[in-house]
Amino acid sequence: MAIITLTTDFGVRDHFVGAIKGFILSEIEGATIVDISHLVSPFNIVEASYILKNAYKTFPEGTIHIIGVDSELTPINKHVAVKIDGHYFIGADNGILSFLAKEINPEKMVEINIHDRIESVFPVLDVFVKVAGHISRGGTLEVIGKSIGELKMLKGLSPIINNEENQITGTVIYVDNYGNIITNISKQTFERYKRGRNFELWARNHKFTNIYFKYSDSINFDAENVTNKDGEKLAIFNSAGLIEIAIYRSNLDTVGGASTLLGLSYRDTITVNFKN
Amino acid sequence: MAIITLTTDFGVRDHFVGAIKGFILSEIEGATIVDISHLVSPFNIVEASYILKNAYKTFPEGTIHIIGVDSELTPINKHVAVKIDGHYFIGADNGILSFLAKEINPEKMVEINIHDRIESVFPVLDVFVKVAGHISRGGTLEVIGKSIGELKMLKGLSPIINNEENQITGTVIYVDNYGNIITNISKQTFERYKRGRNFELWARNHKFTNIYFKYSDSINFDAENVTNKDGEKLAIFNSAGLIEIAIYRSNLDTVGGASTLLGLSYRDTITVNFKN
Amino acid sequence: MAIITLTTDFGVRDHFVGAIKGFILSEIEGATIVDISHLVSPFNIVEASYILKNAYKTFPEGTIHIIGVDSELTPINKHVAVKIDGHYFIGADNGILSFLAKEINPEKMVEINIHDRIESVFPVLDVFVKVAGHISRGGTLEVIGKSIGELKMLKGLSPIINNEENQITGTVIYVDNYGNIITNISKQTFERYKRGRNFELWARNHKFTNIYFKYSDSINFDAENVTNKDGEKLAIFNSAGLIEIAIYRSNLDTVGGASTLLGLSYRDTITVNFKN
Repeated sequence: MAIITLTTDFGVRDHFVGAIKGFILSEIEGATIVDISHLVSPFNIVEASYILKNAYKTFPEGTIHIIGVDSELTPINKHVAVKIDGHYFIGADNGILSFLAKEINPEKMVEINIHDRIESVFPVLDVFVKVAGHISRGGTLEVIGKSIGELKMLKGLSPIINNEENQITGTVIYVDNYGNIITNISKQTFERYKRGRNFELWARNHKFTNIYFKYSDSINFDAENVTNKDGEKLAIFNSAGLIEIAIYRSNLDTVGGASTLLGLSYRDTITVNFKN
Repeated sequence: MAIITLTTDFGVRDHFVGAIKGFILSEIEGATIVDISHLVSPFNIVEASYILKNAYKTFPEGTIHIIGVDSELTPINKHVAVKIDGHYFIGADNGILSFLAKEINPEKMVEINIHDRIESVFPVLDVFVKVAGHISRGGTLEVIGKSIGELKMLKGLSPIINNEENQITGTVIYVDNYGNIITNISKQTFERYKRGRNFELWARNHKFTNIYFKYSDSINFDAENVTNKDGEKLAIFNSAGLIEIAIYRSNLDTVGGASTLLGLSYRDTITVNFKN
Repeated sequence: MAIITLTTDFGVRDHFVGAIKGFILSEIEGATIVDISHLVSPFNIVEASYILKNAYKTFPEGTIHIIGVDSELTPINKHVAVKIDGHYFIGADNGILSFLAKEINPEKMVEINIHDRIESVFPVLDVFVKVAGHISRGGTLEVIGKSIGELKMLKGLSPIINNEENQITGTVIYVDNYGNIITNISKQTFERYKRGRNFELWARNHKFTNIYFKYSDSINFDAENVTNKDGEKLAIFNSAGLIEIAIYRSNLDTVGGASTLLGLSYRDTITVNFKN
């Protein structure tokens, strides 16, 4: 049974998402449709790329992921269908697969060329769902597009290592529902350059000398006043394997989150300094 | 397999939508449930009518659409089940089907009369899901209601043409997720009265002399600085076939949308003047 | 076919919910997944408990309810799987089942102990979905946990009756999508102490002497100006059987709701005084 996921910036109030789902059910009988997110900030490719990279891999192989962010067909924004890691991705070639494709080489990439058969003002519905239907029926990518050699990749997603290899300079790539700040510095990169040295993690004027594996690892449960720790700042390697700056049991509406309390936001700089 | 859609103003935080879905799955084993929208503004019939009209038609024929907006049964708010265009709609007779029923004549309309068998404080769950179950099992509308001759229709949804037929006065009926302004002036109405003449479209003190078919048609991709066009205003015929005033690649949180930048909102007036 | 529901504070923008759904579909082929809510206020156990209690019971028996609120495993926050009223609930033992378990005795309760087999930073995905898979395949709770005698229960959820039994003091436990104020005073409790006496319901300086069964019962439809009643305050027994203070046809964005118009919020006190 086909599984189709949707990652868009359409929001959940308008008719767009409902119309797409109706068309999927018309094209692919019995399809299982899963929303990954419809609240990507409008036209924000980095956000969409981060969300998709961290959501796709729990799905069964063969799942078809439709991406509706900045998808209008223009001379500089082609439509592509890509097979990576056993999954199919259909969207515009606007860098949306950057986080994913820089770690895993695509098995197949085509530029979709069925547009001459479709008069479209709503390509996610008219074009992408048609392509998903084709794939779900076992069709090959070559039938709906022509092979291409590479995808457009976003720049500036990787942290920078200085020549002395004692400093990593990263940036904030995402702020989550709890106000947690996600950086582009992975546990792997951190470990590769740490080499047994001490370190200081700096975010604005806030210093961290521990990076935990769970939020609650920052808490001493044998101590008194465990609940007094609510609202304390900490750094962890999050479930996506990236350094995250968080507030213990944060709530943007009450105690606040790392974004509000520490004054950090999308694209801000984070630095790791290693010391012997 | 039955497909049931939901269009409500219940929001997605409370227990209401979950409870309805549970009851659908109890009544109709294996039902496919699709959310069209739960973020209709409370009691806003025009919004719900616009969303539903533009979402329903991609679904397979026979789909059952449950509408939970202003649905409490009162002496002036009856419950109805209607078959239009091969689809079933269940809701209150409060004008919610106005956009749909003014274009396509209903095949069947009944006033639901199973309330004596049900003590209800939550009719969308107790009454509408019961009716949906009946329809999904192949039951006829006559069994759960008595035929009626007409539906309540909202007034003021159509634009006004002046006697000289050189001016169309429309209104804003919807503001979407991107802040785009949707008017009640259709491409058909525009073309019928244009008759080869030039035109000016006015929204407050903003003038438009082109109406595009795609957002990016407003952009010259051969020119330099294509990205500098972000934030420019334009008019298009949208995917619903209506004149829409938009901002190119708008984002209400950053550059703003047509609603904020042009100062336009729900019920504002839009004028088209034709000139020889 | 397994039905799995999700009640979390993860929000609907991040990748968390999508990732969980993908893993459910990988573990339980053909599962029907239903969102109850992902907009529980972060770490708010009372809210989650209220939502879940009012949503679960419409689902078919055997449904598996996964709860992702404050679920990190710590020395003071164990993971449990509980069977109540024919349904399965999987979450942390943090009081989340308080509203439910105080009315219906659990049939079975185990503390989940499969963590030694799983290295988890995301227990809702790694642990709870694994347990759901086990249950969906007909496995018993004893295989994935050890029996426990009681659940952690939240305090202060029940209203207080004074010694003279002429006053009920309740609190606001939830504010819904319309701004309606839900109290912890049930119809049952109200009726048990009323004993044919008159009453006054007080919320701040607002007095109510009627409690209706439907919002529209407060309206005289034979009178003129029915629509002028929009915005009037009223008290009802809501669909959850609790006293609710509402505004007739409220809208937080326009006329306002009970929360904004009457100045009432979560944890505020509500009093019922009985008089001979």
